[in-house]
Amino acid sequence: MTVHFRQVTIVGVGLIGGSMGMILKRQGLADRVVGVGRSLGNLELAVQHGAIDAFERDPKAAMKGAELVILATPVESYAGHLKEWGRVLEPGTIVSDVGSVKGSLVGQVEVLVPAGVHFVGAHPIAGKETSGVMAASTDLFTGALCIITPTANTDSQALLTMQHVWAAMGSVVRSIDPFVHDWILGAVSHLPHVAAFALMNALTDLQQRTEGGAELLEYAGGGLRDTTRIAESSLEMWRDIFLGNPENLSVMIEALEKELQRFKTLIQAKDGPGLEHEIARAREARQRLK
Amino acid sequence: MTVHFRQVTIVGVGLIGGSMGMILKRQGLADRVVGVGRSLGNLELAVQHGAIDAFERDPKAAMKGAELVILATPVESYAGHLKEWGRVLEPGTIVSDVGSVKGSLVGQVEVLVPAGVHFVGAHPIAGKETSGVMAASTDLFTGALCIITPTANTDSQALLTMQHVWAAMGSVVRSIDPFVHDWILGAVSHLPHVAAFALMNALTDLQQRTEGGAELLEYAGGGLRDTTRIAESSLEMWRDIFLGNPENLSVMIEALEKELQRFKTLIQAKDGPGLEHEIARAREARQRLK
Repeated sequence: MTVHFRQVTIVGVGLIGGSMGMILKRQGLADRVVGVGRSLGNLELAVQHGAIDAFERDPKAAMKGAELVILATPVESYAGHLKEWGRVLEPGTIVSDVGSVKGSLVGQVEVLVPAGVHFVGAHPIAGKETSGVMAASTDLFTGALCIITPTANTDSQALLTMQHVWAAMGSVVRSIDPFVHDWILGAVSHLPHVAAFALMNALTDLQQRTEGGAELLEYAGGGLRDTTRIAESSLEMWRDIFLGNPENLSVMIEALEKELQRFKTLIQAKDGPGLEHEIARAREARQRLK
Repeated sequence: MTVHFRQVTIVGVGLIGGSMGMILKRQGLADRVVGVGRSLGNLELAVQHGAIDAFERDPKAAMKGAELVILATPVESYAGHLKEWGRVLEPGTIVSDVGSVKGSLVGQVEVLVPAGVHFVGAHPIAGKETSGVMAASTDLFTGALCIITPTANTDSQALLTMQHVWAAMGSVVRSIDPFVHDWILGAVSHLPHVAAFALMNALTDLQQRTEGGAELLEYAGGGLRDTTRIAESSLEMWRDIFLGNPENLSVMIEALEKELQRFKTLIQAKDGPGLEHEIARAREARQRLK
């Protein structure tokens, strides 16, 4: 199977969208990569950095001739985008995305694309501490997982095409039901982010209760730094992810609360063997994460 | 002020005790460094690795002639050690430690050392993911904090001596009340360890509730890895730290539970601005941790 696009249009040319554009060009998968975005300065940077060939300020103009459209903006913006320019897409066009939540969103987007246009959800599990198109690179996805989330409505040819695109990005591609995707990512990504944000906020609370004026964070070692590194992640992105996965996150935060409570009870009871058991369980699970 | 010891005896020659021995010898602070420990093989390694000059299997023999004794074993063992050999120490000897909890323990140890022997608590905030004397090095403490925890009973000359010793180790030395130490370390070190252990255990619970056989940890990215790195820390050490700081940890785990609950409530209410506020608070605090 060979995949080739005359034009790919990328909506939102940041770290992920920009890296995709670079690789599409480098691999010869697209004759032309067109960017769309709110910031003229960013689009100009994206051209200079080799992430896109050209850009359009008018999204409808950018969709003309596009055989593949990639949504690389926050998931909350998808509906607005599709309402704005969805109807100008030609039949056969594939619309895909790179969002971190899927679940019911996939069904909502499927309804919004016109008849004959195919939506395929995708989520590359890749990122960096730096964001923006200047951080885009051709090796961002190398060896990283990309989860594609087909449904019963997904066009099988469009699904194959997107699997091929993501393999060309260097990713390890897996297809998973959108709701299962949100359960899995809820556990291994969204919950750790809640935990890291909550830990930083707990430290702010404890700082306010610290007598004698000591600055707690001055005493932090590598452990706290590692544990809370992801608490610096993008505000808008994580707000939208939390809003997009509320049922799973509720259950998962409760699971974490239950485990914290278990530690608290054992500590209050000075139960050495009980603490050993809980710490040993955690260490064994962590060792499997290598 | 010049500090020099004819003999320093180190009880427990692992990463911390071994690194201290190496530096005491390298800096010419001690004519002779004697090790004591349970494992003959480890003590032989410690001599080969240059951490100690000699060792004694009989702790009482190892105390003969010691002007400084360093307890570098788990804090739970201090009372047993001092009951075994405390009475053979000569007046003027300094007993110090490297333990991660202080609080009431310092007062308990002060009572156990004979009249004329001076106890000074110390806690170098240094460590590695690897433990054991083979990981000992002369730069372990370089630039790291060492907290010395004097009380109203602490001999001022012994305190000055230990401040000098830790400055010679390359540490940044601060003196803090033992109870304040446990509050501070509870917040920036013990609580993050509870959080990391609890998060791994929550993931094990969630794995059991995962339908369709997906292995959650196969989908983990760098975020989860960072957040739970310290969940691989030593079982015995952390059991003892949790048992040694129960009142503070109770309060602190509750502070974390409260913050998690706040996120859960905002997520369930789909309160975007509320989530933004909480994430922004966390990000700002984390940025101060640079």
